[in-house]
Amino acid sequence: MTTAAQEQETLDALMERLGRNALEAAAVLAQATSAAKDEALARAAEAIRAHTDEILAANEHDRAAARAAGLGAALLDRLTLDRARVEAMASGIESIVRLPDPVGTIAAQWQRPNGLRIQRVRVPLGVIGIIYESRPNVTSDAGALCVKSGNAVILRGGSESSQSNAAIHRCLAEGLRGAGLPPECIQLVPTTDRAAVGHMLAGMTAYLDVIVPRGGKSLVARVQKEARVPVIGHLEGNCHVYVDRDADVGMAAAIVLNAKMRRTGICGAAETLLIDRACVATHLDPVVRALLDAGCEVRGDQIVQAADARVRPASEDDWHTEYLEAIIAARVVDGVEGAIAHIARYGSAHTESIVTENQATAERFLQRVDSAIVLHNASTQFADGGEFGMGAEIGISTDRIHARGPVGVEQLTIYKYVVRGAGQVRP
Amino acid sequence: MTTAAQEQETLDALMERLGRNALEAAAVLAQATSAAKDEALARAAEAIRAHTDEILAANEHDRAAARAAGLGAALLDRLTLDRARVEAMASGIESIVRLPDPVGTIAAQWQRPNGLRIQRVRVPLGVIGIIYESRPNVTSDAGALCVKSGNAVILRGGSESSQSNAAIHRCLAEGLRGAGLPPECIQLVPTTDRAAVGHMLAGMTAYLDVIVPRGGKSLVARVQKEARVPVIGHLEGNCHVYVDRDADVGMAAAIVLNAKMRRTGICGAAETLLIDRACVATHLDPVVRALLDAGCEVRGDQIVQAADARVRPASEDDWHTEYLEAIIAARVVDGVEGAIAHIARYGSAHTESIVTENQATAERFLQRVDSAIVLHNASTQFADGGEFGMGAEIGISTDRIHARGPVGVEQLTIYKYVVRGAGQVRP
Repeated sequence: MTTAAQEQETLDALMERLGRNALEAAAVLAQATSAAKDEALARAAEAIRAHTDEILAANEHDRAAARAAGLGAALLDRLTLDRARVEAMASGIESIVRLPDPVGTIAAQWQRPNGLRIQRVRVPLGVIGIIYESRPNVTSDAGALCVKSGNAVILRGGSESSQSNAAIHRCLAEGLRGAGLPPECIQLVPTTDRAAVGHMLAGMTAYLDVIVPRGGKSLVARVQKEARVPVIGHLEGNCHVYVDRDADVGMAAAIVLNAKMRRTGICGAAETLLIDRACVATHLDPVVRALLDAGCEVRGDQIVQAADARVRPASEDDWHTEYLEAIIAARVVDGVEGAIAHIARYGSAHTESIVTENQATAERFLQRVDSAIVLHNASTQFADGGEFGMGAEIGISTDRIHARGPVGVEQLTIYKYVVRGAGQVRP
Repeated sequence: MTTAAQEQETLDALMERLGRNALEAAAVLAQATSAAKDEALARAAEAIRAHTDEILAANEHDRAAARAAGLGAALLDRLTLDRARVEAMASGIESIVRLPDPVGTIAAQWQRPNGLRIQRVRVPLGVIGIIYESRPNVTSDAGALCVKSGNAVILRGGSESSQSNAAIHRCLAEGLRGAGLPPECIQLVPTTDRAAVGHMLAGMTAYLDVIVPRGGKSLVARVQKEARVPVIGHLEGNCHVYVDRDADVGMAAAIVLNAKMRRTGICGAAETLLIDRACVATHLDPVVRALLDAGCEVRGDQIVQAADARVRPASEDDWHTEYLEAIIAARVVDGVEGAIAHIARYGSAHTESIVTENQATAERFLQRVDSAIVLHNASTQFADGGEFGMGAEIGISTDRIHARGPVGVEQLTIYKYVVRGAGQVRP
């Protein structure tokens, strides 16, 4: 037997063990009380605070290795923890503790003419696999969301953050143990071997009920291509703001500016501005100027270019692009119908907003645009589970089954039917 | 270019055209009024009645070919249509017309402290691919459920029923046209080339939002293995009835008999009887005798074998088996905990029932058994969308995401978020 085959066998055995552990832990966790789950999370938050120094030391280790490997500045920033970020992880877990427990809630109930009483009751999904890039905070966020929703989870974080993840994971396990729950409710794949990802995607169908990828487009695309278990993922947020002829100019400028520039790197950031041909004379200049003055690059069609010398020409590619930086594409369209058609052609069905004072126009847009989130007179940056009042989220789904939009604790559950009878048989 | 390559290209082009047509039809259908959809379905039902002779002639053609090919009696029966079965298809469509339209209903709504009003609104899934075996009635059932729920559908029926399916499909298209809707809302793959199935599973990700397999275990397993788009499917119904020490004997016998024998070929039919060791003396004999006297083969453990000379020995395989015929496995377990453990080990998480007069025991079973449907004092044969009051169903899902249990028109939808503001930007 070759060394490669031996290593392969070792990884197989490891992943198999993680899977079996998760299945057993999930059976316990699905029946755990809300109080036990909340206690585990509260203790985990405390453990993260108590072990801040160890977490920061582990993170320094990761960062030194990343710098030596020539990791870029943006990736290094995501990888970096400091005292404030560690505290944010702990308080993030505490905010999850305060959410209502979805498990056991009755989503619907009714009685049949034959007397059968039917309830649709929320239950956990089972075992969730989460594959993410080198952002250590995902370890605590995702682990806590899964425990709250009664799911066992197998976490596979980016290899650059492996020491940080391990340190955070020890705190989560300490919380679970302290509450009398199996520490295997949250497992971290303890190897940086990249083959482990392929294993989760295709080799653990007996153990994983769903996989959630958290990361860039290429990670999500790989997961959706290779996964042999269901995936809850989001591909892209190519989000649009449409400024209608009946928009308040000041509101339009404020919403577009916020939608693009508040944070440019989030999936709900606007990437294309559509402006109604009927209000080019009045609305185009103030909106475009607000963007340019804030340091945003604007790439426009000929009419938008004519509005300001700083506007650069847009190409066909721009309408397709999720920039995730301070760049926006801008184009004139023929009213709300033109906006709907542009979004249908180029959009990614994530989040779109219309600015108008005309209710009928707004309703047409809200009805016709087929995106996970459609807004009227509000910024696309509200595309967030917290802003929706759902608490923390594991991501924004652009899938069309199970969950669309923010994936919070409720979206990490499914239901079963409980039917109570008095001896009924089917005729 | 070889002939094989040419044929392949032709199939590629065909499937591509079906996909594009479906996408366009789905955009129209998603915005269609309930009245238009209902009119299309009512006209389709009428067309089926009016064209009964053509449908029966097409079916005779299919059956002649199937007999010549040596198709088995059970498959021939499923393939066979008569006047009553054609009428049942028409009235089945009419019962779908009477269901409430899920599209546009508001599943939840709330207001945020910043004044944003958020609604979760039901919308169609998009384009559904349905792959089924040679049961012509699925053509009308599935087509009608998809139209009602606002989804375009591409149907791929078993090749043995191709003439019947085509005749039924013409009636559905006639109904759509008569209501001013695109006939491409329901498309039938017009080739018996088996490669078309592979194409739907892996080559049409740009067009299909979800695939629903309807058929036996091997079909569903193939779909779940090969599909590159999400699947809503059910694998097996290895359903259990547990007779507890506190069961009413008469009720237990009646429920077990109905659960097994009312119809043996449906997925909600009981396959294993579990009986509490504590009531072997009182309950085993009446229950087993009722089954044997009704012509059911009973395969039991040693205690069950001792109850009646007609009982045959069960092997380990029996606990895993979905018979779908007049055979039941039977075993003594140690109370409700023993039943829960047996079901966790051997069950398929479809439907299980407990018979007991003890409320605490019942609640423990209902809480702990992790199946799509759990019943107390009722037959497993109630596992059916119609019996649940959901109207017609496209199947019973044993998946853990999107939908569990009966998949009716509501489960063929998803939601989007509609957010109404007054100029809010995110701080």
